[in-house]
Amino acid sequence: MAKIAIMGFGTVGSGIYDIIVQNSKKLRRNTYGEEIEVKYILDIRDFPEHPQKELFTKDFDVIANDPEITVAAETMGGLHPAYEFTKSLLLAGKSVVTSNKELVATYGTELLELASQNNVNYMFEASVGGGIPVIRPLHQDLTANKITRIAGILNGTTNYILYQMFTNNRSFEDALSDAQAKGYAEKNPAADIEGHDACRKIAILASLASGTAVDYRDIETDGIVNITLDDVKYAEKAGSVIKLIGYADFLPGGRIYAVVSPMLVPRSNLLSSVNDVYNAIMVTGNCVGDLMFYGAGAGKLPTASAVVADIVDCVRHRERPKKIGWEKPEGDINASRDDVTFSYFVRTPDTSDNVNDIFGSVKFISEDGNERVFITEKLGGSDAEKAFSALSSVTTALRVLD
Amino acid sequence: MAKIAIMGFGTVGSGIYDIIVQNSKKLRRNTYGEEIEVKYILDIRDFPEHPQKELFTKDFDVIANDPEITVAAETMGGLHPAYEFTKSLLLAGKSVVTSNKELVATYGTELLELASQNNVNYMFEASVGGGIPVIRPLHQDLTANKITRIAGILNGTTNYILYQMFTNNRSFEDALSDAQAKGYAEKNPAADIEGHDACRKIAILASLASGTAVDYRDIETDGIVNITLDDVKYAEKAGSVIKLIGYADFLPGGRIYAVVSPMLVPRSNLLSSVNDVYNAIMVTGNCVGDLMFYGAGAGKLPTASAVVADIVDCVRHRERPKKIGWEKPEGDINASRDDVTFSYFVRTPDTSDNVNDIFGSVKFISEDGNERVFITEKLGGSDAEKAFSALSSVTTALRVLD
Repeated sequence: MAKIAIMGFGTVGSGIYDIIVQNSKKLRRNTYGEEIEVKYILDIRDFPEHPQKELFTKDFDVIANDPEITVAAETMGGLHPAYEFTKSLLLAGKSVVTSNKELVATYGTELLELASQNNVNYMFEASVGGGIPVIRPLHQDLTANKITRIAGILNGTTNYILYQMFTNNRSFEDALSDAQAKGYAEKNPAADIEGHDACRKIAILASLASGTAVDYRDIETDGIVNITLDDVKYAEKAGSVIKLIGYADFLPGGRIYAVVSPMLVPRSNLLSSVNDVYNAIMVTGNCVGDLMFYGAGAGKLPTASAVVADIVDCVRHRERPKKIGWEKPEGDINASRDDVTFSYFVRTPDTSDNVNDIFGSVKFISEDGNERVFITEKLGGSDAEKAFSALSSVTTALRVLD
Repeated sequence: MAKIAIMGFGTVGSGIYDIIVQNSKKLRRNTYGEEIEVKYILDIRDFPEHPQKELFTKDFDVIANDPEITVAAETMGGLHPAYEFTKSLLLAGKSVVTSNKELVATYGTELLELASQNNVNYMFEASVGGGIPVIRPLHQDLTANKITRIAGILNGTTNYILYQMFTNNRSFEDALSDAQAKGYAEKNPAADIEGHDACRKIAILASLASGTAVDYRDIETDGIVNITLDDVKYAEKAGSVIKLIGYADFLPGGRIYAVVSPMLVPRSNLLSSVNDVYNAIMVTGNCVGDLMFYGAGAGKLPTASAVVADIVDCVRHRERPKKIGWEKPEGDINASRDDVTFSYFVRTPDTSDNVNDIFGSVKFISEDGNERVFITEKLGGSDAEKAFSALSSVTTALRVLD
């Protein structure tokens, strides 16, 4: 019998409880027959109507000090006290699984090291892509590969908004209101629409794929707030859509270039077909080529099902923890923006002649009226910036995902 | 040090050798530091130019009798002697990993039981979807889910042919010749184009997802040889493409309905965007909803990278084997064709009035000239057959994937 605690009884935490109670027999197939039982649920709120209200506690120490507890699921969200609780549990020799991307992106390196020192697991499948299996496959199934690139639609809210803009010709503001009405976006949507959520997720994926910690604070992050229906119109004319992409390029010598930005995605790239609130992560390995993992990036049961898979994995590997994670890098691993090149999708009121003078060969999407819309050859970051500043002005400039 | 044998030095076998030799240090990250070394390569052919020609043997018993060998990769293909070799190795307490879908689909149940009895692993990630991680994710990441449906593009050759028919308006015969010229199809393409390859793969996936053996010989299997450019034209008119789909529906009470058939796939379904020789498997779980796994379904290094991931997993789990597999079912688990319903895409020379009389409400795609093309409401298998035989004749009838 493996006794566990759930910390934080919100959407995901209550989903974990439901899945464990309903599927305890099925889960045994993967735990060498050991049953998983929820012994505590930690929450500051009261749940007097809950059928097992005796499980609830407001006292974290009850969990930390109970030697029967071997695994805890942290679904509280936020950095504090989730960080302190996780640390205490790992130090007490208990494995912790989490859906808390902010915590993993901020304190993951330290918590992973602590888990390793204490011979327990710290697992975080649900922190990226909700219910999509991607952390474990990256670690385990792609073990024979050097990962060369990751490009992901990592945020469902922004994907929904962009999908509405493309499919129903809704403005950004209208699509955002709709997303809020449907519960896909929060009242304060900044973390989603400004790209911060996707930034934390690509930092986690890049760290895992490279084995060295990528600090999310080093990642240039741009959201979708400036995307207009004119951008949509010309993107469509270019046979493309616009997606918010969390991107990481793994360069020789262990250096990494990561960015979060809306990008032009040609219809020939499968990521362009990922609609609605869905997420998808395209991973390129030197042996396997392109793989894509697609599914629900959020939601109660999808996310909870990923956390439960981690709980099962912890129960299986209690005696010999897995080493899913990364370490502190030696020296600076950040590549410069000049180490990678992108084509750019550009809108400008400047003349076609000036565009040709500045960029050399470009592919014009439109030269009508007051605007020139074109796609450049591949440019390094400084060269692109220099060229943009030579134009009279730039309405839009987006990287193109190839 | 984990010493392994590679049996069959063809495309996949030589890929395994290359990956292990080139990545031995990286692989240690996942084997608790243990190095993997190739000790034998079994092949009936001579490889006098190979840099390690001392590894080659033609004598299987050398491998079976060497106590140092703990894992063997079987990439010989075919049923015999792969079956006998695998059995001997499992009985000798050695784990076996394989890319041999025919063997897994035919003797998997027996070999899995044998592995379990001898406390070793029998793993087969590469037998379905080549380099795509799907077997381990189904088992491990979706452990909290009851799988309700699988729909997959499981054969790259037929996907390439259909893609050429849709994109370049090539006839089936032309597209097949092209696939053969490119090395995507064999000289005798029957196993691919008649659906037998996809049939074995959906049998493996359905067995794994349900935990009970699904016999591939019980699966109704239809290939793509009768698909014409007229079918393509009307499918496009219906906003759809045609894909060869390996399909399994998991019904209450543990019964399973499986079929391999070309199906109409609406553009709104992500499977419709899986182009060229790529494979993709859409898995629906009761918690997680729809997931899709996409990538290269064949090829030397993609497939070899999946086999190497299994080798690593075997090395990790030598002392406590994983239970990835299924068991013999108790009684008949095959659902009847009347337990599931599909809409059908139908072409007939019969009149619109007769179509309406026979099918009630249908959605006409075309009523021009000598032909009526329409999509029916959802029908059970017997009802559909009865309706088709009431028409004067049926040019095409394909299930619609929803």
